[in-house]
Amino acid sequence: MTAPLVRHRGAHALVVLDDGREDAVAVEDPLEIRVDGKPLSVTMRTPGHDEELALGFLFGEALIDAPRPVDPAPDLAANTVDVAGPLARDPGARSFYTSSSCGVCGKGALEEVAVGAPVLDPVAGPRVSRDVLIGLPDKLLQPTFDRTGGLHATGLFTAAGELVLVREDVGRHNAMDKVVGRALLDGRIPFAGHVLCVSGRLSFELVQKAARAGAPILVAVGAPSSLAVALAAEQGITLCGFARRGSMNVYTHPGRVL
Amino acid sequence: MTAPLVRHRGAHALVVLDDGREDAVAVEDPLEIRVDGKPLSVTMRTPGHDEELALGFLFGEALIDAPRPVDPAPDLAANTVDVAGPLARDPGARSFYTSSSCGVCGKGALEEVAVGAPVLDPVAGPRVSRDVLIGLPDKLLQPTFDRTGGLHATGLFTAAGELVLVREDVGRHNAMDKVVGRALLDGRIPFAGHVLCVSGRLSFELVQKAARAGAPILVAVGAPSSLAVALAAEQGITLCGFARRGSMNVYTHPGRVL
Repeated sequence: MTAPLVRHRGAHALVVLDDGREDAVAVEDPLEIRVDGKPLSVTMRTPGHDEELALGFLFGEALIDAPRPVDPAPDLAANTVDVAGPLARDPGARSFYTSSSCGVCGKGALEEVAVGAPVLDPVAGPRVSRDVLIGLPDKLLQPTFDRTGGLHATGLFTAAGELVLVREDVGRHNAMDKVVGRALLDGRIPFAGHVLCVSGRLSFELVQKAARAGAPILVAVGAPSSLAVALAAEQGITLCGFARRGSMNVYTHPGRVL
Repeated sequence: MTAPLVRHRGAHALVVLDDGREDAVAVEDPLEIRVDGKPLSVTMRTPGHDEELALGFLFGEALIDAPRPVDPAPDLAANTVDVAGPLARDPGARSFYTSSSCGVCGKGALEEVAVGAPVLDPVAGPRVSRDVLIGLPDKLLQPTFDRTGGLHATGLFTAAGELVLVREDVGRHNAMDKVVGRALLDGRIPFAGHVLCVSGRLSFELVQKAARAGAPILVAVGAPSSLAVALAAEQGITLCGFARRGSMNVYTHPGRVL
């Protein structure tokens, strides 16, 4: 067996199984993010929306504060994007690297784990009904997940529960970065008055990305970690988990949930 | 709201929800891996089995080939472990960092993504019945997952389907690293004749860790990515996905499945 992947079709590829059936799998490929031509980070991602991914990643790391021009590599097959510098801060002498679901990549010491993000007033809005929040996961509309079972999704919603934007990726952090990057390009940052919803679990790193983007409410289909809860509490974010089957847990700042 | 985490209890912590109920969440905390006192990597992990995690990570990166003495930090709360050097190869001028589910962290260029691992003969054993493989996920026995819904697990099994070793972690890569690290300490590497089973999806990075440890069969409850399938095909690994509800897909080298 040498080439089980018979063909790529965008975000999924078709594979021949041992019984002869074809199965669709989510595409995972490395992307190198460069700044002014210099390699900065490598992430394993699902191809597509690479510019958004690069911008969202850099914004989440507090390396940029506004959109930048992004050039695809001269050789498209090279899986690289090049973002115009200079960066807002020095990433340090070290290089740093991300992956399909990378966390503290690039933080050189434990004390640096938390990247500066605005602390929200937990008494400020939006106010969203519990039923609307519980219903968000069903609106994530994951076309490639339905086909492959292999993608995470992040969605941006209005306080009324209307879907603004959704992105899928093999990496949960990439899906969030793509939403943040798109929003940055569209002038939607900070996410005041909006709700972010993720298809899986909530790690510290995902809450950090949401905090950096100023998201007041974060909803997950899965479980939060201890550090995710602690950071949401500190940052004034309303964190909800296990939003499924008509139920939901509210872990922090419940005043925004009606 | 200032301190929603009322108390830690090993791998889980108790949180008070808005309705007054207590909920258990998986503990996530940073661990800094040092070599001869010098910081090398930070990973977000569930505390416990930190020595195994450090050794498994370094082995997976081909930075060590055999067990090393590992010292916890003088200050236990510092969340660091110190591994005795020297390393088997130079990790490079760059530092590199991992996270709870990190992938290509530390690979400086796309060409370096694949870390050297033995290519297995796909005609060689073990031979395992399909029913045994399908039944492995039920034997993963996830005590902390049952409580929190927030942990990944990796299990090592004999060809007869008997559980040898299982580890849980908020990061899927950490769970695998802990199993590899424990096996390294116990002289069980390479995993010839054994089967690895993971509770979630299969990324490229997880297949790479399995390949480095010489695992001939890799079973996942979830979906594999395109690159996971491609790497398993190249390395001579039998890769199975969606092992649940009495069914399973075999993506590569089906000769080992009876």
